[in-house]
Amino acid sequence: MDLKETLLKYGFHFESDTDTEVIPKLAKFVHDSLNEDLGSDGGDKQLEGAYALIFKSPYYPNELVACKRGSPLLLGVKETGDMRTDINVESDLSAEGHHGKPKEYYLASDANAIVEHTRRVLVIEDNEVVHMKDGAVHIFKSDSDKSRRLLRPASVQRGLSTLEMEVEQIRKGNFEHFMQKEIHEQPDSLTMTMRGRLIRGGEQKAKGILLGGLKDHLKTMRRSRRILFIGCGTSYNAALAARPVVEELSGIPVTMEIASDLLDRQGPIYREDTAIFVSQSGETADTLQALEYAKSNGALCVGITNTVGSAIARGTHCGIHLNAGCEIGVASTKAYTSQIAVIVMLALALGDDSLSTQQRPNAIMDNLYNLPSKVRDVLKLDKDMKELAALLMDEQSLLVFGRGYNYATALECALKVKEVSLMHAEGIVAGEMKHGPLALVDETLPIIVIATRDASLNKQQSVIQQLKARKGRLIVMCTEGDAEFMCPDRTCRIIEVPKVHDCLQPIINIVPLQLLAYHLTVFRGFNVDQPRNLAKSVTTQ
Amino acid sequence: MDLKETLLKYGFHFESDTDTEVIPKLAKFVHDSLNEDLGSDGGDKQLEGAYALIFKSPYYPNELVACKRGSPLLLGVKETGDMRTDINVESDLSAEGHHGKPKEYYLASDANAIVEHTRRVLVIEDNEVVHMKDGAVHIFKSDSDKSRRLLRPASVQRGLSTLEMEVEQIRKGNFEHFMQKEIHEQPDSLTMTMRGRLIRGGEQKAKGILLGGLKDHLKTMRRSRRILFIGCGTSYNAALAARPVVEELSGIPVTMEIASDLLDRQGPIYREDTAIFVSQSGETADTLQALEYAKSNGALCVGITNTVGSAIARGTHCGIHLNAGCEIGVASTKAYTSQIAVIVMLALALGDDSLSTQQRPNAIMDNLYNLPSKVRDVLKLDKDMKELAALLMDEQSLLVFGRGYNYATALECALKVKEVSLMHAEGIVAGEMKHGPLALVDETLPIIVIATRDASLNKQQSVIQQLKARKGRLIVMCTEGDAEFMCPDRTCRIIEVPKVHDCLQPIINIVPLQLLAYHLTVFRGFNVDQPRNLAKSVTTQ
Repeated sequence: MDLKETLLKYGFHFESDTDTEVIPKLAKFVHDSLNEDLGSDGGDKQLEGAYALIFKSPYYPNELVACKRGSPLLLGVKETGDMRTDINVESDLSAEGHHGKPKEYYLASDANAIVEHTRRVLVIEDNEVVHMKDGAVHIFKSDSDKSRRLLRPASVQRGLSTLEMEVEQIRKGNFEHFMQKEIHEQPDSLTMTMRGRLIRGGEQKAKGILLGGLKDHLKTMRRSRRILFIGCGTSYNAALAARPVVEELSGIPVTMEIASDLLDRQGPIYREDTAIFVSQSGETADTLQALEYAKSNGALCVGITNTVGSAIARGTHCGIHLNAGCEIGVASTKAYTSQIAVIVMLALALGDDSLSTQQRPNAIMDNLYNLPSKVRDVLKLDKDMKELAALLMDEQSLLVFGRGYNYATALECALKVKEVSLMHAEGIVAGEMKHGPLALVDETLPIIVIATRDASLNKQQSVIQQLKARKGRLIVMCTEGDAEFMCPDRTCRIIEVPKVHDCLQPIINIVPLQLLAYHLTVFRGFNVDQPRNLAKSVTTQ
Repeated sequence: MDLKETLLKYGFHFESDTDTEVIPKLAKFVHDSLNEDLGSDGGDKQLEGAYALIFKSPYYPNELVACKRGSPLLLGVKETGDMRTDINVESDLSAEGHHGKPKEYYLASDANAIVEHTRRVLVIEDNEVVHMKDGAVHIFKSDSDKSRRLLRPASVQRGLSTLEMEVEQIRKGNFEHFMQKEIHEQPDSLTMTMRGRLIRGGEQKAKGILLGGLKDHLKTMRRSRRILFIGCGTSYNAALAARPVVEELSGIPVTMEIASDLLDRQGPIYREDTAIFVSQSGETADTLQALEYAKSNGALCVGITNTVGSAIARGTHCGIHLNAGCEIGVASTKAYTSQIAVIVMLALALGDDSLSTQQRPNAIMDNLYNLPSKVRDVLKLDKDMKELAALLMDEQSLLVFGRGYNYATALECALKVKEVSLMHAEGIVAGEMKHGPLALVDETLPIIVIATRDASLNKQQSVIQQLKARKGRLIVMCTEGDAEFMCPDRTCRIIEVPKVHDCLQPIINIVPLQLLAYHLTVFRGFNVDQPRNLAKSVTTQ
């Protein structure tokens, strides 16, 4: 239904062209539509869920009304004249530009779209309605008294924020696709993620982890009854990858929750729980709604996002920013590895610091230092992965088996292949193989088995033997030097990766699999950066 | 390596034919092989994991040595003469049959193989070695002092058990396959599962749930910090299906654990936790090992199995038997629905019984009474499902979307299709659709969406709309009478099922999907009851 038709249906009169009548009506319509059912015949006229909307009408050229609920909306302000940085529109419905000097305004749901024009933005909140006319901006706020449902001109006291990103971040540089660029950027993004947080230590000083945003809350977190990791898609997988080390170092039971499933079940959350929300964009609708739910149940809410000022960053009690730099490719790559690194650092911060148990944390910290260079090493597999992708490009299905620390690697590899190369890939925890998936194995189906060295190595060896006994077409990822050991008869294709500490191994292991998904997509001729049917931030349910 | 070769390698002398020398050697070899590395050159000579083994040698006709670790082993005793029911072999290495009267013995890992010959069985324990010779049975036990590693003749004080199953249970009757029979048996198996446990109530008496095996432990369970459901494959899915109602009625946070993953992670389990182990056979290796792990950490351990006397039934502190009757088909069907019914009853028993909150539990109990007849109704979809299977038989891939109570239904449907019809089916929680799987959707891939009426109905409707917008080939499962509502343009194929209480709906919904998997398998020409590569009870890791 077009805007005019809708407005007519709700009794708007278009013959009037005086601003004082029309704009409040338009704004009120928008606000009401977002908040309650106006129609007489049931639900389809009520806007449900999360939205950011912009309204324009040919009847009111040079005007625009925008509002949001749940979803992000940014107002970019480019100042071409005076240097005032706050918008403070008081009781001004006449819409006469009273700022004096010319400005340019931009409305977008993502900072990436704005940054090449200006870095100064105002984050629009729920219940605010933006009206632009003739170069001036007016902001209305809905009255908190619901029965009156009035929109009043609002005094926006918060200042403009400054986007901390460089325009180069949203360019492809020497790469053909953002996904490719972001895969290859991982040594740098991991360095950025750890910068200032990993205390090198020295003769006088102990090694340690400094997470500024959490320091006042670590004590409360250590006394939690449970830690819940809540996320969707890749962010869920990142938390799953780091779950074992959080459990090990903190001794606190960790529950994994897919945000939508927690909401569907309305699962119990209590004041003694710590709920950790993982989202690259910080705007994922389900995760955000789960945050509201957990907060209303009294849990300590911690955010792990890559976006300063995002809804999750604002709504949580405390949190950690990834600092991985802007991620443009819809398929998340560098955010995934940074999320794991951040959660491992969180585990180290949560762990007790008694001297007797310092050996393992210290070893993990040493390995964190060397992680970027190891990632640089593993990126050299690019050519091999391209070859492998050429072999697999015509397949219909792919299974990925992992376990322990690399259960998440299997899920994440399958997700990447699924979302960009549109091949039906499924990640399966290797321990479940005999409970069903083994039936699918024959000489045609390609299977990736992640079997790098850790406590599960023997079990994974046995998985490989059983898959070979069923003539499976195996691609085995193993630790450098283990090729002969894992596959003595050389019938498997091998991906050898450098060894790091077991809990950091998922960061290394995912990299060649990201490259595989990337090359598969290019060979299959699909759009790498904007996969079919998908959006970067899932801001609707 | 054949037995003789192996024995020679370990220094056995075969020239001797006196029993006193050879049998203890044989038995000791078997025991040692199971327990530690005898070889000098590394790991491949040590038997790891769980086994049940029977040794025969042409050098010793009429003799047999059997032993086990972890895996089940039953000794069936058919008495053709005297009626002694205990085997009590004391210091008898001469192997002379001293029972006087003739007997027949059977060794098997599953009662189903024995029951047509005899119902009297001895359950062999770990560290016991059975020696049969000339119609007599001798049982040796390994010395607990490991340094001596001696086998001593054992006095088996426990009596024989009686198998409580009918021979008809292991016949196909009028059906072509066990899986088909067991799907159609579900109204009866559910009745059996609930018999004596669901108190009808009346004018004087309140409705209620009576779970004899748990009554001394319910109080402890209600005070648990967490409830963990631990299982593999279908048993895991059954617990997942019942998880929301356990959380709702008990208010206790529930954590789901795939048994192998819990072991791989060595996840934290504490004394305040209740760990519930779900396994049809009661012998699943990973679940059994997780039980040992949870017990050693002090958790209250509860078993839910279909097999009286199974390792999990014996090893847990308390438990509930399914009483679903013997299940022969490798793909579990009736055990799944009975497992859900049992866990729903457990949730009712755990719930508080204050008057103000009785409405919902009472409604659930009323629905439990009517469940068998509703399952009988839904079985009438057999013909429709056969038609649908004919349409889908040549597909390579299938996606199944469910959420809330029916997240598990999606996983279980995919598992059934995968394990018997060998089609790559994947169950996906519908809330994750936009985080990757949506990319796979086009006009060719068949997709089953479970969208029966419950609190998630609106969200599922929106999922259907979005899949339709991408031209998905939809098969929608909805509540009777909702076809028009769910798919007004009639472009979807519809499966209409009867409505029951939301938490019991998964029991109804899985039945047509079991039938679909069955017919798909028959059409595709695969073995229904013994799917490729799979075993009924996964007694090895």
